[in-house]
Amino acid sequence: MKIGLIGLGKMGLNMAQNLLHHNHEVVAYDLNSNAIKEIEKHGAKGVSSILNLIKMLEKPRVIFMMVPHSVVDSVIIELTPFLNSGDIVIDAGNSHYKESIRRYTNLKKVGVRFMDVGTSGGTEGARNGACYMVGGDPEAWRVAEPVFQDTAVENGYLYAGKAGSGHFLKMIHNGIEYGMMAAIGEGFEVLEKSEFDYDYEKVARVWNNGSVIRSWLMDLAEHAFSKDAKLEEIKGMMHSSGEGKWTVETALDLQTATPIIAMSLFMRYRSLEKDTFTGKVVAALRNEFGGHAVEKCEKVITD
Amino acid sequence: MKIGLIGLGKMGLNMAQNLLHHNHEVVAYDLNSNAIKEIEKHGAKGVSSILNLIKMLEKPRVIFMMVPHSVVDSVIIELTPFLNSGDIVIDAGNSHYKESIRRYTNLKKVGVRFMDVGTSGGTEGARNGACYMVGGDPEAWRVAEPVFQDTAVENGYLYAGKAGSGHFLKMIHNGIEYGMMAAIGEGFEVLEKSEFDYDYEKVARVWNNGSVIRSWLMDLAEHAFSKDAKLEEIKGMMHSSGEGKWTVETALDLQTATPIIAMSLFMRYRSLEKDTFTGKVVAALRNEFGGHAVEKCEKVITD
Amino acid sequence: MKIGLIGLGKMGLNMAQNLLHHNHEVVAYDLNSNAIKEIEKHGAKGVSSILNLIKMLEKPRVIFMMVPHSVVDSVIIELTPFLNSGDIVIDAGNSHYKESIRRYTNLKKVGVRFMDVGTSGGTEGARNGACYMVGGDPEAWRVAEPVFQDTAVENGYLYAGKAGSGHFLKMIHNGIEYGMMAAIGEGFEVLEKSEFDYDYEKVARVWNNGSVIRSWLMDLAEHAFSKDAKLEEIKGMMHSSGEGKWTVETALDLQTATPIIAMSLFMRYRSLEKDTFTGKVVAALRNEFGGHAVEKCEKVITD
Amino acid sequence: MKIGLIGLGKMGLNMAQNLLHHNHEVVAYDLNSNAIKEIEKHGAKGVSSILNLIKMLEKPRVIFMMVPHSVVDSVIIELTPFLNSGDIVIDAGNSHYKESIRRYTNLKKVGVRFMDVGTSGGTEGARNGACYMVGGDPEAWRVAEPVFQDTAVENGYLYAGKAGSGHFLKMIHNGIEYGMMAAIGEGFEVLEKSEFDYDYEKVARVWNNGSVIRSWLMDLAEHAFSKDAKLEEIKGMMHSSGEGKWTVETALDLQTATPIIAMSLFMRYRSLEKDTFTGKVVAALRNEFGGHAVEKCEKVITD
Repeated sequence: MKIGLIGLGKMGLNMAQNLLHHNHEVVAYDLNSNAIKEIEKHGAKGVSSILNLIKMLEKPRVIFMMVPHSVVDSVIIELTPFLNSGDIVIDAGNSHYKESIRRYTNLKKVGVRFMDVGTSGGTEGARNGACYMVGGDPEAWRVAEPVFQDTAVENGYLYAGKAGSGHFLKMIHNGIEYGMMAAIGEGFEVLEKSEFDYDYEKVARVWNNGSVIRSWLMDLAEHAFSKDAKLEEIKGMMHSSGEGKWTVETALDLQTATPIIAMSLFMRYRSLEKDTFTGKVVAALRNEFGGHAVEKCEKVITD
Repeated sequence: MKIGLIGLGKMGLNMAQNLLHHNHEVVAYDLNSNAIKEIEKHGAKGVSSILNLIKMLEKPRVIFMMVPHSVVDSVIIELTPFLNSGDIVIDAGNSHYKESIRRYTNLKKVGVRFMDVGTSGGTEGARNGACYMVGGDPEAWRVAEPVFQDTAVENGYLYAGKAGSGHFLKMIHNGIEYGMMAAIGEGFEVLEKSEFDYDYEKVARVWNNGSVIRSWLMDLAEHAFSKDAKLEEIKGMMHSSGEGKWTVETALDLQTATPIIAMSLFMRYRSLEKDTFTGKVVAALRNEFGGHAVEKCEKVITD
Repeated sequence: MKIGLIGLGKMGLNMAQNLLHHNHEVVAYDLNSNAIKEIEKHGAKGVSSILNLIKMLEKPRVIFMMVPHSVVDSVIIELTPFLNSGDIVIDAGNSHYKESIRRYTNLKKVGVRFMDVGTSGGTEGARNGACYMVGGDPEAWRVAEPVFQDTAVENGYLYAGKAGSGHFLKMIHNGIEYGMMAAIGEGFEVLEKSEFDYDYEKVARVWNNGSVIRSWLMDLAEHAFSKDAKLEEIKGMMHSSGEGKWTVETALDLQTATPIIAMSLFMRYRSLEKDTFTGKVVAALRNEFGGHAVEKCEKVITD
Repeated sequence: MKIGLIGLGKMGLNMAQNLLHHNHEVVAYDLNSNAIKEIEKHGAKGVSSILNLIKMLEKPRVIFMMVPHSVVDSVIIELTPFLNSGDIVIDAGNSHYKESIRRYTNLKKVGVRFMDVGTSGGTEGARNGACYMVGGDPEAWRVAEPVFQDTAVENGYLYAGKAGSGHFLKMIHNGIEYGMMAAIGEGFEVLEKSEFDYDYEKVARVWNNGSVIRSWLMDLAEHAFSKDAKLEEIKGMMHSSGEGKWTVETALDLQTATPIIAMSLFMRYRSLEKDTFTGKVVAALRNEFGGHAVEKCEKVITD
């Protein structure tokens, strides 16, 4: 199939190679011309504008977007004037499912079929076999399915239903991921503080072979420990890209108790702080009622 | 190797078959004579008492215990008078690591070498390839290693160090397991309350193929949903057998924040309650200050 | 001062009496004509429409709204055509601070000065001395301050600054309230499950006299236990009216870890469920890997 | 009444003055001779040894201990040989209730009546009116009650029942205190991160007058902010002295979900860490699957 691909970041570049590997034709565009040159080496046709991308595709066009969720709308705005009824636009990035429903509804008015696709598996998955959660128009799905079938790992794609259902599923996937990662982290932290002297790479390996908690994340943990046995070079700052927050917000809207996912998110936020105002207040209160000593901040002397 | 096996419950029976399958001789004892008969069908030699079990083994004896942690001490007490210096006693069940350190120390005084082994992988693992975390005497390990090597899945055993380190590792493994399971459960709960209509078996399958959260637990989730699509037949009562609690207690002793593991345990406790006193107090307080309505318990009228 | 009061619910009726008690003139309106008759008995002037309310006030008019946050916009829409530049509209209910900022901005365009006021202290406070957190136009504050001074408890009002700051402060107040109530509830729950036989009314009393946790909430707890020693008549269903959720959502937007407030909210949600899908999934997984028994739901037989 | 007082730390010194103020005779002992001199100025009789303290009291002796829980046993061991049947020993410090039950049982064998007393209200309460939660022998209570009545704030003491019930109640009191403090702290942290510019002293004051969350802790918050408006001089390190941990351990033993108290404890532990291993593991995993950047620890170069 001939596919337009917009977005050649880490994920997009790997996805393009995966598509090419499965004998799809890829017309690729990115703001970064170096990325275009890079993917041309692998056999894609690079184009210098969205208009050129549109021109090189046949109707119904199949356009894959693999861009940050913050620019999806601007890409769609740029695309829309050139699209025809029946064209298929696929957002394979991490957009909020409510945005996807809105985009689906708006594009439907002009006959364009929008699909929301959550893509998991990281960069390696994008290259060698991804995991796709797909929502949107079922007719469009019939057209596009071969692309997903080819580039997914076996059994690694699911058409989940109406618009939004793909990105919703990916959002929840990431929420679960937050919880799993935090559980694994906490386990190793207790090991680290214990009286025992474990080799964490070996621990991760044994836990990944035959145990109840064997998982790809444990596999990755083994790999990480193989490079840095005590993770001494890595700061424990846990950034997040938004899907965990969306999961908790959604849980709040649905009045659903999700303590594990919420706490894993809060501990990420906490990890980005050197000190907290909560802590200052509690320390001050303890000092007030019990005369408990407080640790003073070092004064910066500037004269 | 000739091995004495004490305990033919779900785990012990499967372990016995696994040993037999790898051409070990198994002398087996259990209080339940039916279990003994059962394992004799598979080629084990059943015995009617611990004394007989001892007699049938050659020195240094290798004795596997696969019994509930509450009876480990009484089995050891029964065993000890008949053991000789150099004999190896292996507790492959879920004992508390502090108990294992105590048992190691006590048995060492009489020359008996005690090993604490955490066994993971469930009943199926016990039969076809388990995961072992081993602590205790390194000399004993040299003797016993082949047994573990044969009955473990590939790379599925680790000699972790001094006494207690095996059961400690298994305890933490279970703590992580609690957190992972709760994260998965919360994810499906948000799906269930959402506006979408997912087929959970298919969701579990796609999440188990290529995604970041692919794991044995997700595999099991797929299997569970294949039997009962919405788990309508299962009550959400989450019992626990102790290792999650031990993990949290250990974290408290080590002053380690483990919110994910702790919350997953607390939500298990909560799931066993129909109503809570916390809830009653909060509802009463809201009624006191804001006149918020409280739901009245139905009075049971008995006259 | 002559004040227009819109909303004669539990809070509004008490507030009206408080205003009248301090020799303010009250022109009162509510959709419920019985509430109007009721407050007329206390000396207010009841009116049958918002238009009549407007007519009876002198410029600059001071209009108090004490209505559910869901109807604030519709009341403002009804009011606006009749208002003059310089009039003051006060939302003393529990609106979201972002809504208050929006309303402030919109009303400012037509010269109307909007104030957002968080009111605490429950119905009794509304009657005998409330606690006010005020945001909005500082000029308007100069006009309206006497009303708040008169009807607040001593030191019980604060002009906190720009638009939204009053409702923001009230929102956080309620978030803290959720956490405090949950902490108190948990404490009593542990007492209830302990081996001791406490008289909770007496416990609340002693905790309310001289202890570190003495507080109005503990006072209310004493009162609640005095009526129902074990709260046997109250179900532990913890409803919530939105401000706790807003607090957590705000914390998420500010990337602030608020585990206590979030967990107190989640436990409220949990209290409204008989069973959870999380629980079903965890129970099913335990059954899958360990053969742990699951409790079966009773089948409803309908033929 | 004539009272022997052992322990003249912050709490003991204030308690002694409180007793003297209410015309009790105080025979006081401490390892620190300066503290003895200090209390003699206030009219107590200082003694240089426990034996001398015993000698100066009349039977049945009433002996108050106000010492760290770690030394209670050694004081009791020193006291016991000199005590007579009917003497009353009161532990008014923060001992674990299980220890108090053990001490009660052991002392009962030699006829000595032991009482476990939780004392709240901080140092100021100890001086001017404390809050007491008392467990132990009811006969001894009849003898000792006047001492508690005199030195407590009005309604500020409770005989709660059998041995251990006093210290259990104090433990739970402290657990609630942890939760309340954390809730207050979180509230101020969200204020601090908000777009508004609050004067926290004034916020604490308004919240302490008429609001639902008015409390002694809010009063103390006002005081703390009056001295340091943004708590800039205080580090947010939240130490703990054990009772919160005991509360959570007890909740675990009673299978009681106490998420608020547990999380407030965990956030205290977290506040004492600069970085966490959990964080390192999660950051490493994110790097593994998504190529997310990790922050590198600064290498210390030492040549």
